[in-house]
Amino acid sequence: MGDLKLVRKFEVGVGFFNRYEKLVKDVVLPYQEKALNDQIEGAEKSHCIENFRMAAKKIKTGACDGEFYGMVFQDSDVAKWLEGAAYSLAQNPDAELEKRCDDIIELIGEAQQKDGYLNTYFTVKEPDKRWTNLQEAHELYCAGHMIEAAVAYAECTGKSRLLEIMCGMADHIYKHFIEEGAEGYPGHPEIELALMRLFRCTKEERYKELAMHFINMRGVDSEYFVKEKEKRNWTVWGADPGDKEYAQNGAPVREQDKAVGHAVRAVYLYTGMADAAMETGDTTLTEVCRTLWNNITQRRMYVTGAIGSAYEGEAFTKDYHLPNDTAYAETCAAIGLIFFSNKMLYLERKGKYADVMERALYNCVLAGMQLDGTKFFYVNPLEVLPGISGEAQTHKHALPVRPKWFACACCPPNVARLLSSIAEYAWHVIPGALFSNLFVGGTLDLSDSFGGKVTLETAYPYDNKIRYHFAPEQETMYVPLAIRIPAWSRNTKITLNGREVRCEIKDGYAYLHGNYSAKDVVTVELDLSVRRVYTSNKVSANTGRVAIQRGPLIYCIEGVDNENDILSVSLKKDGEITVSEYLPDKLCGIQELYAEGYRETVSDELYSFDAPAEEACRVTLVPYYTWGNRGLNQMRVWIPEEA
Amino acid sequence: MGDLKLVRKFEVGVGFFNRYEKLVKDVVLPYQEKALNDQIEGAEKSHCIENFRMAAKKIKTGACDGEFYGMVFQDSDVAKWLEGAAYSLAQNPDAELEKRCDDIIELIGEAQQKDGYLNTYFTVKEPDKRWTNLQEAHELYCAGHMIEAAVAYAECTGKSRLLEIMCGMADHIYKHFIEEGAEGYPGHPEIELALMRLFRCTKEERYKELAMHFINMRGVDSEYFVKEKEKRNWTVWGADPGDKEYAQNGAPVREQDKAVGHAVRAVYLYTGMADAAMETGDTTLTEVCRTLWNNITQRRMYVTGAIGSAYEGEAFTKDYHLPNDTAYAETCAAIGLIFFSNKMLYLERKGKYADVMERALYNCVLAGMQLDGTKFFYVNPLEVLPGISGEAQTHKHALPVRPKWFACACCPPNVARLLSSIAEYAWHVIPGALFSNLFVGGTLDLSDSFGGKVTLETAYPYDNKIRYHFAPEQETMYVPLAIRIPAWSRNTKITLNGREVRCEIKDGYAYLHGNYSAKDVVTVELDLSVRRVYTSNKVSANTGRVAIQRGPLIYCIEGVDNENDILSVSLKKDGEITVSEYLPDKLCGIQELYAEGYRETVSDELYSFDAPAEEACRVTLVPYYTWGNRGLNQMRVWIPEEA
Repeated sequence: MGDLKLVRKFEVGVGFFNRYEKLVKDVVLPYQEKALNDQIEGAEKSHCIENFRMAAKKIKTGACDGEFYGMVFQDSDVAKWLEGAAYSLAQNPDAELEKRCDDIIELIGEAQQKDGYLNTYFTVKEPDKRWTNLQEAHELYCAGHMIEAAVAYAECTGKSRLLEIMCGMADHIYKHFIEEGAEGYPGHPEIELALMRLFRCTKEERYKELAMHFINMRGVDSEYFVKEKEKRNWTVWGADPGDKEYAQNGAPVREQDKAVGHAVRAVYLYTGMADAAMETGDTTLTEVCRTLWNNITQRRMYVTGAIGSAYEGEAFTKDYHLPNDTAYAETCAAIGLIFFSNKMLYLERKGKYADVMERALYNCVLAGMQLDGTKFFYVNPLEVLPGISGEAQTHKHALPVRPKWFACACCPPNVARLLSSIAEYAWHVIPGALFSNLFVGGTLDLSDSFGGKVTLETAYPYDNKIRYHFAPEQETMYVPLAIRIPAWSRNTKITLNGREVRCEIKDGYAYLHGNYSAKDVVTVELDLSVRRVYTSNKVSANTGRVAIQRGPLIYCIEGVDNENDILSVSLKKDGEITVSEYLPDKLCGIQELYAEGYRETVSDELYSFDAPAEEACRVTLVPYYTWGNRGLNQMRVWIPEEA
Repeated sequence: MGDLKLVRKFEVGVGFFNRYEKLVKDVVLPYQEKALNDQIEGAEKSHCIENFRMAAKKIKTGACDGEFYGMVFQDSDVAKWLEGAAYSLAQNPDAELEKRCDDIIELIGEAQQKDGYLNTYFTVKEPDKRWTNLQEAHELYCAGHMIEAAVAYAECTGKSRLLEIMCGMADHIYKHFIEEGAEGYPGHPEIELALMRLFRCTKEERYKELAMHFINMRGVDSEYFVKEKEKRNWTVWGADPGDKEYAQNGAPVREQDKAVGHAVRAVYLYTGMADAAMETGDTTLTEVCRTLWNNITQRRMYVTGAIGSAYEGEAFTKDYHLPNDTAYAETCAAIGLIFFSNKMLYLERKGKYADVMERALYNCVLAGMQLDGTKFFYVNPLEVLPGISGEAQTHKHALPVRPKWFACACCPPNVARLLSSIAEYAWHVIPGALFSNLFVGGTLDLSDSFGGKVTLETAYPYDNKIRYHFAPEQETMYVPLAIRIPAWSRNTKITLNGREVRCEIKDGYAYLHGNYSAKDVVTVELDLSVRRVYTSNKVSANTGRVAIQRGPLIYCIEGVDNENDILSVSLKKDGEITVSEYLPDKLCGIQELYAEGYRETVSDELYSFDAPAEEACRVTLVPYYTWGNRGLNQMRVWIPEEA
């Protein structure tokens, strides 16, 4: 199966993601590097690197100046940044950046204890409390992220120093939990998916065993965190160890059938489970993953691919409960849903998994970052009203503009590592097939597998044409190409050199087989007609409302385009919606939509016996991912529809 | 001006409130008496009376067995119950009940300390901490409620024992805060309005002075609670003393212009302010009260008269923020809004104040109690969805069925005391005028003022006719009658013995003057046409939705009447809505409404590109105050409207 090596063999070409690739390289990674070093004025302090310096000094000298600062999981910000930098280096060699990464890795090595243990919080602040608070203290979580960084850095740069460090930590964990039989499982899952990556990278069975151990132990003793709390005499936040929904430990994972609790924890866990199911052929686990994925995507997911309906616990709530304005909808959770869906797609070749990856990517995840790459949303609501959003007691979390950084800075580097490894999701190269899941323009080096290169050329999502070009090493190359046909595309046409191709279409993929020469072009023409989206009438918040989608993009209305008042605007049922030409200078290049609609006369009067007067108007919609880039401003995705 | 004496002179007649009068007397008061004595199986323990017994024993013997149990303000439940019982006794003499009340009052007297101090929490549990935690500890709040009970009991039964006890406590408070100059003001306002009542009952200027003191000091030192917390070494809940919105102390009250914070605290404070403004002629205070009342009713009030949009802080949030399903909308807060509006109506004779009293009374307050008087809602949402309401993290407070009692039992006795003193709000007898504000059937004894009796006869709110009969002591009686014309009544006809009367209509009141004999009947015919209510388009939650009102009653749809699915139901714009005949056996007697509407085909699919199919249907609506009386069930007030 395709692994991270792929990244090194994909060159993002001209097109939509090219801008993001450059942004990550030129702005996001340097900006985040500064943030980790506390060099951004007016932003929340990170202290990440400094924590490692202190831990290193303490290990060297037995003591350090200053105090650990930040969240108990602060180390993971460095890990995610390193992972993003690794992906970027694979595509854009940069000796200076690589040198700085190497220096950080050296520092990380110095912060590692002799027995392999690595965690600056415990090393600096609580050396005697290792492994006593799995519920809250994120030791396994931080280890997981650093393992991911290690695998990525090794595969992208060929340098194995961080991998050695993290194999040391993984061995330490193995010893503690397997050999010495320590009880428990992580409060915040992540290590499971990381260990699966480490296993695939190193072929070391022990790491798979350890991943399976944490998956299998979870929820078997559902009182574990309660007992753990009774034993220890310290706490990070005083979190309730008995909240078994929050931590997905109310039952063994194989008996779980609803996605519950902290959304990021949930999807990280499920990602590890799906990966383990794939590696082990465990059909029970596969079935559980299917059930949980269905529960999320068919009952608990926003139309933007966001998940987590409640601020309280940053959590899933109940089926069909999807409030728009108070949504938590964390950027990291949408990213986790992409991870989970990607693994499911490896488990079974169904386009619906890629459809969800695309939904989350083009909408929630991209909205998580300012278009200029320097500000970030943690929370991605589907309706924002200045005066209420970010201000009312119930909306403190739902900020109407992106801040520069966060005290809890999990989301920004998560966006960076996802965008810089986008090819991992766009393509799956498996024995006997090349799957084109997401239409990211660029060139894929398949010399190992199919004897040549494939270039995808497109202006998608703003153009409907996706062209596959071939550069065989011999005269031709045989490529068994599986192209996703998105569920939203009603009429899709596939041509070879202009002539329509008949091919098998199964579970959302068109399967083409051909010996292609350098002159051949396979073209997919998707149907980018504007679509109206309706929610199940079981979702109270969206009664009588419609969302507008074009291609993978969910659109929204913002005040700035609509007379600074979107609450009085509705869309005409079956009204015409026209698509603007491509506007290269607006919001980094978009196509707007113009819909026939109505505008009510605005009334300050709270209650009235008179229906508000209304007149026809033109409603302007912009892609959701671009919202909040033009100042404080109303925004709404689900718009009332009127006959 | 009319004071509590009135209650003794009004006999609730046949009609809508007659049932409630009997219910309070026969069920609610006895039930609550049992609850206070911990005799209700399966209900939350109260321990109220037991707390007084322990305090009495401790005062007598220096020690007591057992421990104080319940909220720090548990005493106030006894006070509110006693006040309700007093009102009931005024109308329905009941020697046994009066004896039990007298016994409780004796017990209260025994629980009073020699210096006049009365509070079982502090006497039993924290004797050394009196007056050290005004922010949280509710001493002044409990004193205020017991003062109200004392005034009511004296005026309704002529017995002054409780009044003496509470004058002792009021004098103690006066000494502490005025003579000894202690700093501070109550965390939970209530004493202000109570002291105004005590002043009017006793004519003792000191009590008015003390009320004005607390009003005037509030927010002058807005850091008072912060400083207080720094000084003390104990806490009740660890509440944030710096939350100045919560406690309405961010600025002196005369500089406040938005209703903020804990909604009950706010309206209790404003009630005291309005009462003080009336007694003192303080025009600045009057203007502030006007501004705050307008802010509530024009920006922050639900259509049911409920207030408090957020569970967090049980609080007001922001203008036009009125979520239906997560509303706090506490029963006590709606009752407080009635208190405040009633005082505003004394300040200025405008029908809008009575309109709001009526809105809160017939909708939120009545909904706060099961129709059989034995279960209560604390929280009164405008949309309830079993599976989410009461269950989702965001909806734990919004229960879908009424519980028997509460650990914090402020609402049930508050409903009882309001309903049993309803005449206080229905009528205002002021020099030279009799104001008929609410149309409660019954007989008013006006021998002191207008030389006879006036009887209001009506089946309102289910009949549009309100008849005033007269029983002069002489041949005729001169009655300057001011009858409220509700804002919802488009066409109102007033007749004297069948002939239309021309009269001045000003600010929502029709002013009639006449010498009436026993044969005369003044009849008001209100327009009970069904009205559609629309919210300002600034209220996001109600976009595209309509509420249905008939007379004072807001209607709702419940699942039980509508195929157990209300989320797929919409009302036809301008569709016909018919009114059923009076159904005496349904929900204790109601008129249903039948509206032309549409029902969508229910879809489980979360998102779809197809608009749901729909067909015409008949939608059944019932009065909001009756909802939740037929088991677990969906409910919605704001219903989508479609052309």
